[in-house]
Amino acid sequence: MDTPDDRIADLGFARVDVDRAARTGDPEVVYGAGKTPEQVAAIMATLHERHPERAVLATRLSPEAMLAVESLGADVHPVARAATLGPLPTPRGAVGVLSAGTSDAPVAAEAALTVAVHGAGVTEIRDVGVAGLHRLLAVRDRLDDLDCLVVVAGMEGALPSVVGGLTGLPLIAVPTSVGYGASFGGLAALLGMLNSCAPGVTVVNIDNGYGAGVAAARIARSASPDRSGRRANEAGRG
Amino acid sequence: MDTPDDRIADLGFARVDVDRAARTGDPEVVYGAGKTPEQVAAIMATLHERHPERAVLATRLSPEAMLAVESLGADVHPVARAATLGPLPTPRGAVGVLSAGTSDAPVAAEAALTVAVHGAGVTEIRDVGVAGLHRLLAVRDRLDDLDCLVVVAGMEGALPSVVGGLTGLPLIAVPTSVGYGASFGGLAALLGMLNSCAPGVTVVNIDNGYGAGVAAARIARSASPDRSGRRANEAGRG
Amino acid sequence: MDTPDDRIADLGFARVDVDRAARTGDPEVVYGAGKTPEQVAAIMATLHERHPERAVLATRLSPEAMLAVESLGADVHPVARAATLGPLPTPRGAVGVLSAGTSDAPVAAEAALTVAVHGAGVTEIRDVGVAGLHRLLAVRDRLDDLDCLVVVAGMEGALPSVVGGLTGLPLIAVPTSVGYGASFGGLAALLGMLNSCAPGVTVVNIDNGYGAGVAAARIARSASPDRSGRRANEAGRG
Amino acid sequence: MDTPDDRIADLGFARVDVDRAARTGDPEVVYGAGKTPEQVAAIMATLHERHPERAVLATRLSPEAMLAVESLGADVHPVARAATLGPLPTPRGAVGVLSAGTSDAPVAAEAALTVAVHGAGVTEIRDVGVAGLHRLLAVRDRLDDLDCLVVVAGMEGALPSVVGGLTGLPLIAVPTSVGYGASFGGLAALLGMLNSCAPGVTVVNIDNGYGAGVAAARIARSASPDRSGRRANEAGRG
Amino acid sequence: MDTPDDRIADLGFARVDVDRAARTGDPEVVYGAGKTPEQVAAIMATLHERHPERAVLATRLSPEAMLAVESLGADVHPVARAATLGPLPTPRGAVGVLSAGTSDAPVAAEAALTVAVHGAGVTEIRDVGVAGLHRLLAVRDRLDDLDCLVVVAGMEGALPSVVGGLTGLPLIAVPTSVGYGASFGGLAALLGMLNSCAPGVTVVNIDNGYGAGVAAARIARSASPDRSGRRANEAGRG
Amino acid sequence: MDTPDDRIADLGFARVDVDRAARTGDPEVVYGAGKTPEQVAAIMATLHERHPERAVLATRLSPEAMLAVESLGADVHPVARAATLGPLPTPRGAVGVLSAGTSDAPVAAEAALTVAVHGAGVTEIRDVGVAGLHRLLAVRDRLDDLDCLVVVAGMEGALPSVVGGLTGLPLIAVPTSVGYGASFGGLAALLGMLNSCAPGVTVVNIDNGYGAGVAAARIARSASPDRSGRRANEAGRG
Amino acid sequence: MDTPDDRIADLGFARVDVDRAARTGDPEVVYGAGKTPEQVAAIMATLHERHPERAVLATRLSPEAMLAVESLGADVHPVARAATLGPLPTPRGAVGVLSAGTSDAPVAAEAALTVAVHGAGVTEIRDVGVAGLHRLLAVRDRLDDLDCLVVVAGMEGALPSVVGGLTGLPLIAVPTSVGYGASFGGLAALLGMLNSCAPGVTVVNIDNGYGAGVAAARIARSASPDRSGRRANEAGRG
Amino acid sequence: MDTPDDRIADLGFARVDVDRAARTGDPEVVYGAGKTPEQVAAIMATLHERHPERAVLATRLSPEAMLAVESLGADVHPVARAATLGPLPTPRGAVGVLSAGTSDAPVAAEAALTVAVHGAGVTEIRDVGVAGLHRLLAVRDRLDDLDCLVVVAGMEGALPSVVGGLTGLPLIAVPTSVGYGASFGGLAALLGMLNSCAPGVTVVNIDNGYGAGVAAARIARSASPDRSGRRANEAGRG
Repeated sequence: MDTPDDRIADLGFARVDVDRAARTGDPEVVYGAGKTPEQVAAIMATLHERHPERAVLATRLSPEAMLAVESLGADVHPVARAATLGPLPTPRGAVGVLSAGTSDAPVAAEAALTVAVHGAGVTEIRDVGVAGLHRLLAVRDRLDDLDCLVVVAGMEGALPSVVGGLTGLPLIAVPTSVGYGASFGGLAALLGMLNSCAPGVTVVNIDNGYGAGVAAARIARSASPDRSGRRANEAGRG
Repeated sequence: MDTPDDRIADLGFARVDVDRAARTGDPEVVYGAGKTPEQVAAIMATLHERHPERAVLATRLSPEAMLAVESLGADVHPVARAATLGPLPTPRGAVGVLSAGTSDAPVAAEAALTVAVHGAGVTEIRDVGVAGLHRLLAVRDRLDDLDCLVVVAGMEGALPSVVGGLTGLPLIAVPTSVGYGASFGGLAALLGMLNSCAPGVTVVNIDNGYGAGVAAARIARSASPDRSGRRANEAGRG
Repeated sequence: MDTPDDRIADLGFARVDVDRAARTGDPEVVYGAGKTPEQVAAIMATLHERHPERAVLATRLSPEAMLAVESLGADVHPVARAATLGPLPTPRGAVGVLSAGTSDAPVAAEAALTVAVHGAGVTEIRDVGVAGLHRLLAVRDRLDDLDCLVVVAGMEGALPSVVGGLTGLPLIAVPTSVGYGASFGGLAALLGMLNSCAPGVTVVNIDNGYGAGVAAARIARSASPDRSGRRANEAGRG
Repeated sequence: MDTPDDRIADLGFARVDVDRAARTGDPEVVYGAGKTPEQVAAIMATLHERHPERAVLATRLSPEAMLAVESLGADVHPVARAATLGPLPTPRGAVGVLSAGTSDAPVAAEAALTVAVHGAGVTEIRDVGVAGLHRLLAVRDRLDDLDCLVVVAGMEGALPSVVGGLTGLPLIAVPTSVGYGASFGGLAALLGMLNSCAPGVTVVNIDNGYGAGVAAARIARSASPDRSGRRANEAGRG
Repeated sequence: MDTPDDRIADLGFARVDVDRAARTGDPEVVYGAGKTPEQVAAIMATLHERHPERAVLATRLSPEAMLAVESLGADVHPVARAATLGPLPTPRGAVGVLSAGTSDAPVAAEAALTVAVHGAGVTEIRDVGVAGLHRLLAVRDRLDDLDCLVVVAGMEGALPSVVGGLTGLPLIAVPTSVGYGASFGGLAALLGMLNSCAPGVTVVNIDNGYGAGVAAARIARSASPDRSGRRANEAGRG
Repeated sequence: MDTPDDRIADLGFARVDVDRAARTGDPEVVYGAGKTPEQVAAIMATLHERHPERAVLATRLSPEAMLAVESLGADVHPVARAATLGPLPTPRGAVGVLSAGTSDAPVAAEAALTVAVHGAGVTEIRDVGVAGLHRLLAVRDRLDDLDCLVVVAGMEGALPSVVGGLTGLPLIAVPTSVGYGASFGGLAALLGMLNSCAPGVTVVNIDNGYGAGVAAARIARSASPDRSGRRANEAGRG
Repeated sequence: MDTPDDRIADLGFARVDVDRAARTGDPEVVYGAGKTPEQVAAIMATLHERHPERAVLATRLSPEAMLAVESLGADVHPVARAATLGPLPTPRGAVGVLSAGTSDAPVAAEAALTVAVHGAGVTEIRDVGVAGLHRLLAVRDRLDDLDCLVVVAGMEGALPSVVGGLTGLPLIAVPTSVGYGASFGGLAALLGMLNSCAPGVTVVNIDNGYGAGVAAARIARSASPDRSGRRANEAGRG
Repeated sequence: MDTPDDRIADLGFARVDVDRAARTGDPEVVYGAGKTPEQVAAIMATLHERHPERAVLATRLSPEAMLAVESLGADVHPVARAATLGPLPTPRGAVGVLSAGTSDAPVAAEAALTVAVHGAGVTEIRDVGVAGLHRLLAVRDRLDDLDCLVVVAGMEGALPSVVGGLTGLPLIAVPTSVGYGASFGGLAALLGMLNSCAPGVTVVNIDNGYGAGVAAARIARSASPDRSGRRANEAGRG
């Protein structure tokens, strides 16, 4: 019923936007939740065929969907519940993905893989929750070589505030649904991050490692390789 | 219409419980919100008359109520919006009241005064918000000489988690209504504290410095003056 | 990618903090929710191996996880859905765990076991809900021999207010998710406890028997064995 | 534009239903919130003129509205923020209105006055909050001579559960907006009462003393004067 | 650990209150949710054995629990998901249970059975939702012979307001969880009923047919058999 | 800084869209909330000057703003808190605006005026709340001559369900913020309307008489003057 | 127990209203959620037998229920999870159903089928989400031939605002539960649509494609076939 | 009581952190809400004295506070309700601040001023709400010369989704409290932005123009002046 459009591949069960890179510079992505393994595989294959020179990312995959795309030749990342098909871009800039606890690993891994697929370098720093501050302080110096941070935490979601007080980097906070009772499925962490006392913290939806990864990669890709002189006041001295 | 009862002083507009100390060991308290200055002063005077040997505490006082009770001879504490009438008890044990930001001062001061009126010693440690971690780490050693902590914070309410990771002391968290927007009047801080990843954190109502002070004083009053050997494992070595 | 750290045992799927006791005086704990039986057993075994002289606690265990840790030699507590491995510490101080209804038993049992593992003595008092007041009044005198109370209730969560009016002990309220409809998964009980008219009640997250047990054990362990003279006013007579 | 209707008196700013008693057996009532003193007085006068042989009730009156209706000859009840004009009916049956704290007095007084205007007898029992259980237990025997209870409480709203466990009378719980922070304007008390563990408790809107009074009067008016044999099992013995 | 008490039967997994009738005049009740079929059957049998002359009610039964109690000789009511064991009391007074839609049937049936077990007569009037007003108006006259109404509705919960405008009977509204989306599990119906514009409507928890039945039976049992002269104004004419 | 655009009149404090009618066929509207009387008057005058042949509508006016626009020659509608400037269009089609209670009058009046300004005829039917059903039934026949209904109600918001069961007309429900306590500022009415058991009810924001009026006018303007044969099945007989 | 009524077919498990068309002009509908396949089939068959000349619609069907009604001869629409039995009416007027994403397809399909069964013509326009604006702008001209729009979107629910700015047609917005985390089951989309900055947008419950379809069909059926001159100002020129 | 610290200036009523620039590279900021004009002026003066070579920013100023700081020589920005004292830094990079409606102007202006004070260039683009899409499309090309966007909107908060679909720039969304009813003080806009279907959108607290400005300035300051080759795929071609 709709107008034909070569920016769209119509697979019957879905109309796939094969033109996103042209508009935004980002790779094609398949959101796997609510799709059958066969559908995920068909969309990945279609997107890959149109643009074999760049990576397709599939997220929120079931174990069955991971098997299905593996048989297409995709690289499967089980912790991230995600897969890629096609060559990753050469990384520009550097993103750090910090996470608070072991249970936050899937969201952090989704963010890290998304950063890589979107063309930025990525470093993961795990298990630096605020109740064990010595571990966070031990990695503080490593933050100086980065262009942007993604900070992943569930429960009370305090990690972005603490990290935001240690650095002036752009910082994207990701609340996770880890928790129970008055966590209300991640609402407590989300509200905590939105009310952060550290200025400059920005926030994405609960468990949205993908969205944080996209934002961080955009920031890092466009960052000047020269990290000196980024501060407001130094800038003003010129 | 009710049975006469000498545990109650009937002032017409209110029936005052003059017997609480006998039941719980705590002093008499007047909650000033929603009362006229005259009512607050009358209740304070009545309670003081019955038990002149111990302090009466009045909280949530308007400026007018502070003036009214000052003329009775009460000691007024403007930051805490509170006053006491009668001699404070000799302190037993030591409570630390930590607060995150300047705006949390009234709640922290209410907690500290409540601790003192309820018979424990108190130390206030201010402006140790998590976005300026160096200030908190600078006071860490002072916590070793305390029996109980009250930790006051608004916005994301992350301070109790960080403090709870630095010490094994009983810790009572007080969310404040400081914040705006998605703070929802202190709800964000409340949820953050209830979901703290630091074990053993307990929580009171938003802005309830009084309740935290009562709980902390009870813990500190009953603490053994010998602070060595309090840990679970050392205890087990005997 | 992280710095090696002998305070951490890296099991691949998790990085285990084997140093918590040194920081806080509390035993090691495994939170079983979201972990496979094999993972729970592996973490328990690792922690036990590092510190065989003290107990490891595992909570929120599935039936399968209980079997898995039993085969390691752990003591399994089915009602509490928990297990311990290694010798419990000698108890210091006394905690009472009161619960309102039969359905609150798992949370109360988790709290009681946590108290014991954290080095304090524990007494359980069950089925003292407020709609059958005679049963609560019948146990009132037993409260005098305790240092701290944990009060567990679902539905409207009224028990802590009633108990808090009967005693001046430190009191930690635990809302449970027992209820339906407008209980909203324990929210009604949580709000009830946060708004308790009995001063000095502090609250933990919904179903968080573990957190209440940690807090109560810390209070009881540090309490003076001499329970006379704990009241604010008596203290002042010295 | 509407059809003329002698069951309605059109005052321009309002169309007054002058026929409610014929439909439901209840008196006419003016809800004063959001009306000017002149409007309240005009409506009261109109209703009184139509049915001078029975009382008109006006609730939620501002101080100015109380003055305005007093000059009509109405009886003003300042604590209840209400007034009546015309003779009260002879009471049938007996309602008890219990309230927890001093701040709950206006809602309790509104309920009690509403009961009287709706034709039942009323007894007020005040300051029987659950944190001072001895006071409630002292009045327990007085409940035996009543047909219905209205139980008014703010904060955690626990009083109906405790009273409901002491008696088998019909019990209407009224949450009040007394409280702060996580009371959320009376929501905590409302949820507490809806989740009461005492069976048979029914609930009205926050601060709705009027609604509770109507319901209680209807129950008491129709109650048999013979209070023996009301229990389910005794009934069955016949 | 608890004091022995012959008002309690200890079945190991539960401590059963066998004395409720003595306190409140109501029968014994087993809440089946969260209990195994064996536990439900054991509690029913124990309660029946202590008081074989009166009925035990069990609610919220799974299909398996219904089979288990049927083999004890209980009468099973599948729509109500409930069962009774022992003779029902002779009914006194008359309760009407009105329901809006077919999906509300289980809650209405639970309410009706509870009324009968608690000693009052009951009439069910079904499928009188407000979107088909003619059906409700057709049964209006039948309401005159009743002492109390239970009105059950899901979705927007409007039925109690409409019924409350047609009659002056005591009216207990039961919101159900029937609905989807912005029904939020029955919250919409609950709020609707609490805000009813018909005075005198009281409300119980979502899906709480049992609680409404208890309250209605108490009201009907104590009602005077002479239904004339119940109105406020007629009462006043004496 | 922005591109000049003759579809916009830049008044300094606001950039006024003077081109809406061209896009949507609707008149220009000034939303008065948060604007000074001078700003409202200036915008009205500007819009009127550009298109003197058609009406400008201003809503949510303070008393001061009403005076200010009256001096421009605007027609002020005090109950609706609104004003118009310029000639109203000849009405096409017929909208009925029904409201439940006196307090809903401002929202109903805003809706009715908006309908007229947007080019449809309007009939107001007031005080037909569901608790007095006879009044609603008395106006039922008048609905047959209408093309669309706007139904305004606060508190439980039940009126649209009842009206929706009486007619097959397009029906737009408007919840109002009339109520207190668990009305939560109109949320109860909003949820009630969204969950209406009458099919085909659509809903606008709380107190949004304006939005409902726009939607209703669009429907009525495009309705065929021949109202016979509108039903689905009659339509099918052709 | 109820009065016999030939407007009702009593199937034992349900009382079916077989008279709705006579009251509202709409076809009979079976809401399949919570019914067994046998019940759905039995109700469909009964309704079809009474009125074989018009269609019966069944919605929210499980796969098993689709099979069951297919064997009755019903037309099954798998994407819409719905079926019809009997001839569809000849369409009058034209409705456009726009949807944002692939996951919104079931709700859009339910709306479109409902429109058809209720006697209006329908055009589906899919995958026009606001993040790919070019696709929406490409179909803009097609909107001019329609009488009413149904706009379906999940996540942030922004599509109705954008479409509402492009056209002056009556527009019914349907929020879907598509999303995760802070979507809160469709609440985010619902609130977004209720707060639309485009005037005249009306909203139905989350996932309520059926309700939107009913409303849209009523509007389109009664629309004048002559679509010129529908604007307010053109109307006024007469 | 606290340790002296030359990173803090103690003004009695507040302890001012005069060292933030050294830690994060950002300027000093005074949050004016809840402070008296005198306090705001004193803090600004103190901060300026310590670092006269760089700007101090004060936000959320009352009209009185604006006057107070103006007399210090501060530059006052009335729309932004903010002021600066000291020279602004030379801007690096370019931020665009887009806003939807006139009422969003204060938040947008706060964001724009914050960007400037934090060392980046800023362009404001106003009144580009989604209901008037032509205005947004008219400015699309201007976005290509920017490094980061701040997008400010109230009501349904749809603007960031639409803008995010037009560009691949880092985008920070700011919900405002503009709206009424089901806007719930900005909650609707906040949820809409968190659920944006445009990938890479990050969000700050309601009305938090300051926080968005800090984040945007950090991103823009560190951006490479060469804007070509920022896309993921181009990057990968190297």
